[in-house]
Amino acid sequence: MKLYGYWRSSAAYRVRIALNLKQLVAEQVSVHLVNNGGEQHSEMFAALNPQQLVPAFVDSNDDGEFCLTQSMAIIEYLEEQYPQSPLLPKTPKDRAIVRAMAQSIACEIHPLDNLRVLQFLVKEMGVDEEAKMKWYHHWIHIGFKALESQMKTYSGKYCFGDTPTLVDLCLIPQVYNAKRFNVDLTDYPNILRVWTYCNQQPAFADAAPEQQADAT
Amino acid sequence: MKLYGYWRSSAAYRVRIALNLKQLVAEQVSVHLVNNGGEQHSEMFAALNPQQLVPAFVDSNDDGEFCLTQSMAIIEYLEEQYPQSPLLPKTPKDRAIVRAMAQSIACEIHPLDNLRVLQFLVKEMGVDEEAKMKWYHHWIHIGFKALESQMKTYSGKYCFGDTPTLVDLCLIPQVYNAKRFNVDLTDYPNILRVWTYCNQQPAFADAAPEQQADAT
Repeated sequence: MKLYGYWRSSAAYRVRIALNLKQLVAEQVSVHLVNNGGEQHSEMFAALNPQQLVPAFVDSNDDGEFCLTQSMAIIEYLEEQYPQSPLLPKTPKDRAIVRAMAQSIACEIHPLDNLRVLQFLVKEMGVDEEAKMKWYHHWIHIGFKALESQMKTYSGKYCFGDTPTLVDLCLIPQVYNAKRFNVDLTDYPNILRVWTYCNQQPAFADAAPEQQADAT
Repeated sequence: MKLYGYWRSSAAYRVRIALNLKQLVAEQVSVHLVNNGGEQHSEMFAALNPQQLVPAFVDSNDDGEFCLTQSMAIIEYLEEQYPQSPLLPKTPKDRAIVRAMAQSIACEIHPLDNLRVLQFLVKEMGVDEEAKMKWYHHWIHIGFKALESQMKTYSGKYCFGDTPTLVDLCLIPQVYNAKRFNVDLTDYPNILRVWTYCNQQPAFADAAPEQQADAT
């Protein structure tokens, strides 16, 4: 198995945590998102993933190797194919709640605040640094406010109960990212509590950006 | 079952198609996204969905009624709970490909081009109409270019093979939306072919915005 990622990519970080929790080992291949105009746009990588985004994940079956894309789809694949340490609860209702909490980050925060969007705002929309930060902070606060409210109902040691789920895989990278951009998170005590707890667990700690071979 | 939606919401449109394909009937409750500053921000609706977004979906089990949010989570729930007319293929590999193609819309296009983001660009970022359109078109083209390339490999009558999947549920509302914003789609023959075919099927046609009771 091979994971094409980048140390600071939140989406690759999610998959690294999933692999660690399931005790799966994948060769890590670094795709530098900034150098050379972004190595994800290289011909070689675009052939692997036409979306030109990390992560991309290579696994194999009886028919040979194949490449999967989109972190949430990769994690659902890992969940179906390698069911140890499940990342989704058992009942359809609880699974839907966990997927929705995860998507409140993966579909409502991360797509707006990721590198390529911030680059487009600055380079193509002529937005200045202050407005860029306003944009970044806005979507974090909107999303975290709703998630914090759901965590009041559902969280235990983790975002949903006392075992790690898909929500934690999305939350921890998003908090890492928010802290880089100096977002004040004091209004989100449940988010901060779970973030602290997760980072004490080896599966999360070993997946952290600074622990990756391509970290600079 | 109850679906809180809005005729022009792409995410609610996805769920309407899923319900139709599975021949499930849900009471439709309209939440007007523009009137009164957006009825999704009302106290009543925020209690139902702290994210203050449509769709929200109410179903019940032995313990009573419960409310689910996030269109992709709702559709996965419908798929698990009501397996007739499956929206995902059988093998984990194919399921991952379908989920990734769907997420290339749900996580890479729609979050950037939906109403609240366009409103924020204009009202809070001071972006003018021309720049707003540039933004809108950019993310459609980036996303559709990649999807078109995947559809060359995987599409049949539908985006993935000859039966409708999660990808079609995401694509048809996104094309509807892109056409509203006058995006030129001639570079995407596979997308246009599937779009035309889907709209000839009652499950898709009946879910179209203009067919909804709250359409104006």
